Amino acid sequence: MAIVDVVVIPVGTEGPSVSKYIAEIQTKLKEYKAQGKIDYQLTPMNTLIEGDLKDLFEVVQAIHELPFNKGVDRVCTNIRIDERRDKSRKMNDKLASVEKHLDNGGQE
Amino acid sequence: MAIVDVVVIPVGTEGPSVSKYIAEIQTKLKEYKAQGKIDYQLTPMNTLIEGDLKDLFEVVQAIHELPFNKGVDRVCTNIRIDERRDKSRKMNDKLASVEKHLDNGGQE
Amino acid sequence: MAIVDVVVIPVGTEGPSVSKYIAEIQTKLKEYKAQGKIDYQLTPMNTLIEGDLKDLFEVVQAIHELPFNKGVDRVCTNIRIDERRDKSRKMNDKLASVEKHLDNGGQE
Amino acid sequence: MAIVDVVVIPVGTEGPSVSKYIAEIQTKLKEYKAQGKIDYQLTPMNTLIEGDLKDLFEVVQAIHELPFNKGVDRVCTNIRIDERRDKSRKMNDKLASVEKHLDNGGQE
Repeated sequence: MAIVDVVVIPVGTEGPSVSKYIAEIQTKLKEYKAQGKIDYQLTPMNTLIEGDLKDLFEVVQAIHELPFNKGVDRVCTNIRIDERRDKSRKMNDKLASVEKHLDNGGQE
Repeated sequence: MAIVDVVVIPVGTEGPSVSKYIAEIQTKLKEYKAQGKIDYQLTPMNTLIEGDLKDLFEVVQAIHELPFNKGVDRVCTNIRIDERRDKSRKMNDKLASVEKHLDNGGQE
Repeated sequence: MAIVDVVVIPVGTEGPSVSKYIAEIQTKLKEYKAQGKIDYQLTPMNTLIEGDLKDLFEVVQAIHELPFNKGVDRVCTNIRIDERRDKSRKMNDKLASVEKHLDNGGQE
Repeated sequence: MAIVDVVVIPVGTEGPSVSKYIAEIQTKLKEYKAQGKIDYQLTPMNTLIEGDLKDLFEVVQAIHELPFNKGVDRVCTNIRIDERRDKSRKMNDKLASVEKHLDNGGQE
């Protein structure tokens, strides 16, 4: 189980807004989630996706493809993978782990 | 007004957990927020910070510094800046803009 | 044909040096290159790989895997994909394109 | 002494080519280098800059600004900082360190 944090930037669009492309990506992710492959979460700066790494690579490739289908000629996609194998962690486990430290006043 | 998305990775830590470092970063960000300089939000994969770009650079440099103070010898920090000058946007405006497209069935 | 720019960071290593992990990644990339799938280039901060995007995803997944095989429990991998479909470009074409502008004094 | 790896992506440009923006960034970096503040290197995917971290933040902010001056309304800049404090390293030291491992057959 890994988590990826993805930003897809279409280059050469008409004007600076790219939210229609991001919306299409969310729609695609909803389909993948319905298949039970992944879970995902949109933040103001990126999309977080969790699942098996093999599935995540498939999903990232699929969403990187979407702006091309809408006529964009160049897409820059930035992906951060965070994978830990000593224990299973989901997205919310990571937040809980930080909050536990905060409750301790930032001390161990 | 810009938004940055930051990940600070301490390298050469004892074991794979870095949540104590992330917690310390959150505590520092809380101080900056109390000064009215920035707003921020922790996600499972990164920290989002909004403010004037000049302040954001100061804040990012400060949080990149923290693991060194705890004895770490190497820190890798990854920053994505997204700045738009044609209109003022806050973190939640970006989400709202995507959701508007989703309500339209992903169409313009 | 796409180009990716990859950084693999093993977390929880003994000490701050990770060059032995990077060297192993280069050895793996050499094998992929010998198969004719990709070309690659090591820079002081990352590894650049060019090829078909499908192959690049396979290769990135393979090199992200390597530190786990050496006993590391957490790996953070950062990938920037740059893909352009209006014309075929290789790594050196991109540099040549910037240099052409520089020769013109930064003007078009 | 730190090294940063920077990509500046102007969003909403006419067409997919952004090499004129990258050329302008290189010209600016040349000025900073002439002042003795930094050293830098253009690769096919990014620009590597080494110097004191305080100077690097100033330089990154300056080059992120450039596309706005040319009429672009949105700029996405991606920065990877790699800083090591246990020993001083320059860009070429990092490559040499990996190559030393390669000469040993990828073994320590």
